[in-house]
Amino acid sequence: MSDTFDVAAATEQLARQLAATAAQRDRAGGHAAAEREAIRRSGLLALVIPREAGGWGVGCAEQYRVLRRLAQADSALTHVYAFHNLQIASIQLWGSPAQQADLLPRTLQEDWFWGNALNPRDTRLKARRAKGGWWLDGVKSYASGSVGSDRLLLSAVAPQADGRELQLVGHVATRAPGVQVQEDWDSFGQRQTDSGTVTFQEVWLADADVLQAPGQLPTPRGTLRTLLAQLVLTNLYLGLAQGAYAQALTFLQERARPWLNGNAGQVLEEPLVAHRWADLRLKIRAAELATDAAQVALETALAQGEALSADARGVLAIEVAEAKVLAHRAGVALTSEVFELTGPGATSAKLGLDRFWRNARVHTLHDPIDLKLRDIGHFHLQGRLPPPTSYS
Amino acid sequence: MSDTFDVAAATEQLARQLAATAAQRDRAGGHAAAEREAIRRSGLLALVIPREAGGWGVGCAEQYRVLRRLAQADSALTHVYAFHNLQIASIQLWGSPAQQADLLPRTLQEDWFWGNALNPRDTRLKARRAKGGWWLDGVKSYASGSVGSDRLLLSAVAPQADGRELQLVGHVATRAPGVQVQEDWDSFGQRQTDSGTVTFQEVWLADADVLQAPGQLPTPRGTLRTLLAQLVLTNLYLGLAQGAYAQALTFLQERARPWLNGNAGQVLEEPLVAHRWADLRLKIRAAELATDAAQVALETALAQGEALSADARGVLAIEVAEAKVLAHRAGVALTSEVFELTGPGATSAKLGLDRFWRNARVHTLHDPIDLKLRDIGHFHLQGRLPPPTSYS
Amino acid sequence: MSDTFDVAAATEQLARQLAATAAQRDRAGGHAAAEREAIRRSGLLALVIPREAGGWGVGCAEQYRVLRRLAQADSALTHVYAFHNLQIASIQLWGSPAQQADLLPRTLQEDWFWGNALNPRDTRLKARRAKGGWWLDGVKSYASGSVGSDRLLLSAVAPQADGRELQLVGHVATRAPGVQVQEDWDSFGQRQTDSGTVTFQEVWLADADVLQAPGQLPTPRGTLRTLLAQLVLTNLYLGLAQGAYAQALTFLQERARPWLNGNAGQVLEEPLVAHRWADLRLKIRAAELATDAAQVALETALAQGEALSADARGVLAIEVAEAKVLAHRAGVALTSEVFELTGPGATSAKLGLDRFWRNARVHTLHDPIDLKLRDIGHFHLQGRLPPPTSYS
Amino acid sequence: MSDTFDVAAATEQLARQLAATAAQRDRAGGHAAAEREAIRRSGLLALVIPREAGGWGVGCAEQYRVLRRLAQADSALTHVYAFHNLQIASIQLWGSPAQQADLLPRTLQEDWFWGNALNPRDTRLKARRAKGGWWLDGVKSYASGSVGSDRLLLSAVAPQADGRELQLVGHVATRAPGVQVQEDWDSFGQRQTDSGTVTFQEVWLADADVLQAPGQLPTPRGTLRTLLAQLVLTNLYLGLAQGAYAQALTFLQERARPWLNGNAGQVLEEPLVAHRWADLRLKIRAAELATDAAQVALETALAQGEALSADARGVLAIEVAEAKVLAHRAGVALTSEVFELTGPGATSAKLGLDRFWRNARVHTLHDPIDLKLRDIGHFHLQGRLPPPTSYS
Repeated sequence: MSDTFDVAAATEQLARQLAATAAQRDRAGGHAAAEREAIRRSGLLALVIPREAGGWGVGCAEQYRVLRRLAQADSALTHVYAFHNLQIASIQLWGSPAQQADLLPRTLQEDWFWGNALNPRDTRLKARRAKGGWWLDGVKSYASGSVGSDRLLLSAVAPQADGRELQLVGHVATRAPGVQVQEDWDSFGQRQTDSGTVTFQEVWLADADVLQAPGQLPTPRGTLRTLLAQLVLTNLYLGLAQGAYAQALTFLQERARPWLNGNAGQVLEEPLVAHRWADLRLKIRAAELATDAAQVALETALAQGEALSADARGVLAIEVAEAKVLAHRAGVALTSEVFELTGPGATSAKLGLDRFWRNARVHTLHDPIDLKLRDIGHFHLQGRLPPPTSYS
Repeated sequence: MSDTFDVAAATEQLARQLAATAAQRDRAGGHAAAEREAIRRSGLLALVIPREAGGWGVGCAEQYRVLRRLAQADSALTHVYAFHNLQIASIQLWGSPAQQADLLPRTLQEDWFWGNALNPRDTRLKARRAKGGWWLDGVKSYASGSVGSDRLLLSAVAPQADGRELQLVGHVATRAPGVQVQEDWDSFGQRQTDSGTVTFQEVWLADADVLQAPGQLPTPRGTLRTLLAQLVLTNLYLGLAQGAYAQALTFLQERARPWLNGNAGQVLEEPLVAHRWADLRLKIRAAELATDAAQVALETALAQGEALSADARGVLAIEVAEAKVLAHRAGVALTSEVFELTGPGATSAKLGLDRFWRNARVHTLHDPIDLKLRDIGHFHLQGRLPPPTSYS
Repeated sequence: MSDTFDVAAATEQLARQLAATAAQRDRAGGHAAAEREAIRRSGLLALVIPREAGGWGVGCAEQYRVLRRLAQADSALTHVYAFHNLQIASIQLWGSPAQQADLLPRTLQEDWFWGNALNPRDTRLKARRAKGGWWLDGVKSYASGSVGSDRLLLSAVAPQADGRELQLVGHVATRAPGVQVQEDWDSFGQRQTDSGTVTFQEVWLADADVLQAPGQLPTPRGTLRTLLAQLVLTNLYLGLAQGAYAQALTFLQERARPWLNGNAGQVLEEPLVAHRWADLRLKIRAAELATDAAQVALETALAQGEALSADARGVLAIEVAEAKVLAHRAGVALTSEVFELTGPGATSAKLGLDRFWRNARVHTLHDPIDLKLRDIGHFHLQGRLPPPTSYS
Repeated sequence: MSDTFDVAAATEQLARQLAATAAQRDRAGGHAAAEREAIRRSGLLALVIPREAGGWGVGCAEQYRVLRRLAQADSALTHVYAFHNLQIASIQLWGSPAQQADLLPRTLQEDWFWGNALNPRDTRLKARRAKGGWWLDGVKSYASGSVGSDRLLLSAVAPQADGRELQLVGHVATRAPGVQVQEDWDSFGQRQTDSGTVTFQEVWLADADVLQAPGQLPTPRGTLRTLLAQLVLTNLYLGLAQGAYAQALTFLQERARPWLNGNAGQVLEEPLVAHRWADLRLKIRAAELATDAAQVALETALAQGEALSADARGVLAIEVAEAKVLAHRAGVALTSEVFELTGPGATSAKLGLDRFWRNARVHTLHDPIDLKLRDIGHFHLQGRLPPPTSYS
């Protein structure tokens, strides 16, 4: 691979390609095989893979810039792509040096697209100890990007003699014997996230493919994975807000009609439109600034490696939560409010601009915003830090 | 017809019937022939036709109660039905005694479903004077309920010798020679409003079928038609808010899962859920109260007949505008915010609950809310009354 | 007393009298002896005393209309006056027929101004049983209207042999031996509420003056006292919003200067001003409608007498809470936001218009709005009724 | 002067000193001579004076950090101090090299505290041409910091033969013959801003003291003075929000009582409190981030010197406006909303916490926020830049 990969250009080209068919694919739903291929061809699967493993080795801020741009075009496929990157990060955060040395270059060589089977709320996948590894049986739902993936990062619970269930994390080939992916995502938004239910029947997980042994507590650094994931969501919300804003702006500039009995001959000169537009802009602005700041803080934390303290990790979690709340609100608000300015013409089903709201509405429900607000409040009132979980 | 027609029961039955297939018909779009028939069979087409003409002769408040209930189930077909009622009211407000004596009973005898071809922003339909009537040529877009209707109320412009264009209002049979309805509604919400573009080629409009002669200025009473229409919209917005609220409540009571790391073991006991739910409720409450009050005021104005002054009409227009703004906001807010409480389960495409937002979003763009706010402000600041137009 | 007392005229006259010195008395704080006298002379102390006892016997709705008007002028003295009425209502709700027959006419004959010493959060006033009555010792803080009153309604706790403390309610003369009122209200708003700490030293409370015996549970009807009090607060908040609105309107009409680089030559023609003014108006409108509706419901409940069920009382409590939240928000918002429209001229200390915000801000903290919202939410989610307490 | 001046320490010490008496001085109003002296002694009058002229030469960002901290304690005196800095900046932006070389060191040597007499809306001060200078006659109102100042920056209009009035800018000694400062600030907030009306009777303004000749159009760089002033306001609003937040937090931590019938035994554990506190925090957070960003952009623009283009200046004006709107809203909201969390105890007049709202309310009316929003909207809709004025 060359040193001259132009991330911005590759992103822009992919964004335009996704945008061209986004409205129509949103209507169709299902698996977007061609677009998955386009992502693969774009070179962006190597984005966060370290340079020494042959990737482009970009940092958080640059990765999130890519996601934000892509999400303006197609937040469903951006989610699939972002979760590929997240699995790469998981290997870096959780894998042994040997595992990293194996998996990171292999991802490039074998052109893997990683999927997710880590849903923490579904504990039906069980791991049974055997010599040299584990037998996996059960199911894992809400597995984003599993449909059409090459490799799955998964969590399973290993029942213990004393009745406890301890979680382990590992990875298997999506096409390994006994693995079956059922495309069953049924939601009115984020329709092409290739989310499915994965069934495991006597699937072999070798010890070498275990990234976290049962009950192994991650270090503060290891728990950054959650914050990486939360900032993926944050950037997707922000991209959705920006996408709706940009589409509405184009509509207003090119096609909107003056208001009957309005205050100006052109809608763009209407003081009430300018006034409300400013509010939309400020919602995006606040979310952008908070997200940018959280990304810088996350890069700093990652740079600390295992020296990262639990407290510093907790403070970062709050900063991420603050960005996420602002982006959540901007996403839901913008994708609905822009229509008040564009007027009815922009609701044409052909344009399909409702997909921004549907995508934002569905995706922002990932974990309750009200608990984020509670965590933020407790921190600023009492200095209490949120416990590291899959969501915080 | 009998004196014992039970409006509430007929409404409830129709609402349930419409609800049963609403999600699926929303996905399909297009003309809902069977549901149009169900409305016809329900007896509700006679709702506002006066008793002396054989109808049920109910007043505004009762009519709007019916609309509000139906809109909780299916706001698109409710719009179609409401506009039938609106044409009946137009005959009463604008028609001569002879026209009323003819058209009101005939509507029942011939089982007419009225459609609308009055869009004031489209002035392409021209009327050419001839002996005993007018020849109509041109098109009329955004004709709600025109597809599948029996009779159309229309406006056309009659070019004058001095270059002015004066508007006349009349009615024709939808199946009259030269009339063609093109189903071309293309919007992501209110998908089954049977809205179309009506083309007129040498269509004959007899003088007897003219309700407003060219340039004839309506009296203050005549302009109440706009306020009747604005309250139709208001009640539809309110019904949409109530429908989304009711569906979310059912989901929360029956299917919602507790929040991971929440403050309570059950989602219904979560203080943050109760707190936010109260806000949703208050938005509906405020809109309901303002709408109810506006309806009472409209009934009072109607009861004054031609004695109604322009000032009293103007004050009523403000009261209607206030109700409409509150209902607009409740409609758009509720249909999006309920999901923050239900969580992701309620976004299942099978349930199709996004249709409430899509319907509210599209329908609330009928005329800009910001101009309503401006009118309300000018009245309370300066006592200025909005001029009677098709929107105010 | 005559049948021809004109409530509206008396109210208007008193309101103007209070308004004339309100800004200046707000600055001074302390006891407003002359204004107390003006209230006495107005005849309004008899407002809710039943006709058969010689009063004007007006119902809730009319009483609250009076409060709302007076609060536009001076919400502190209105509070003092409203609590006089509330003690009259307490006698009617809690007193025996004999007590009512005695106290209601005596209030008029002896020209009593009632004060409050019922603060439920202060349990330091103890009642010791003796023959024929109780000895009262201790203190009662936040006693609204106690300074300058003639008669105090009080609650005290009677320690029981088993260690429990049971509450009793009775009344004493403010000038009775052993009663001392300390004027110690220190708040930046509602400065002339004559609130103080009342010290009792061996004060005799005869059995005949006990309205609720220790531990006597009020019937649902008896608990309406709380709702009457909550609607007093509600109407004060509303009056404050209306007062600030009216003052700002006058300023805008008479003195506001055009905006530099604005959209219009006069501030009243500025579209952005009209737009925002409408929002202020709608906040008042919603609160007014909800309050009016709650008042009607309360009158209905009162009319049921002892037949009132606990459930009906609970549903009413929710309706009152909804009105209170809307009025609370309108009060706090309006009293601050009006200045954005008037501009800096209206912040002149001479006008003293900040007192509206200070009064609203302080008075709306009576009990936490967030618990009201929680109660409203629980009711609409689960049908759960709030327990009757001093606040709900 | 030494190189070792510790800006942060001097700021912190001054802030604490101002805080100690702020509530009591707010009640008293008027001129704060002792605190003016404290500012002088703090060394902060030299803050923005360049190092080569003997000052501390700090940049925008650091200056604004100082203002933000001081405003948490006393936003009135901070305004007075900030406007001293602003006059220093004006000399740098508008003065000739010779004037700068004279005035900047002289400010330190003669220990001048600069005041403002530039109010652009008051054009009553006239300049009459004479040999070697101008005679000034007339008045200038709303002159912030004029009371107790040593030197005044002023604008006056020079009537032209053709009837036009052209503005010039110059400076005079406050104690020069013919200058009289009338302390007449009468507002319920920002009470000690030493704002007055300055009367000029035959006051001599030598040509050497003219910074802008009549009608001389400032370059884009020259117009940065407005943006410096707008960011002063922005940081004051932000400081007020932060001050109210900090005071409320202390109250909550030390003195707040649990809610009767709340969800937790301690108010800090109340989920509804934490939830709302987060919202307060996010308002501050967004405003902080936007203000910080605008400050960086302003420093960049200043660094460009006369190379700064009108377009770049316009884009910066929008960025400043965005920060100002967010800080305005945070200031007004926080200073009122904190009380909903603290409860009534925090309204004690002794604490005087209402001054935060009164200060924010008055100061945020400097120029209408709605025009800022309009300007922001027009820029993002059409790329239109606001014309450089005294406010934009």
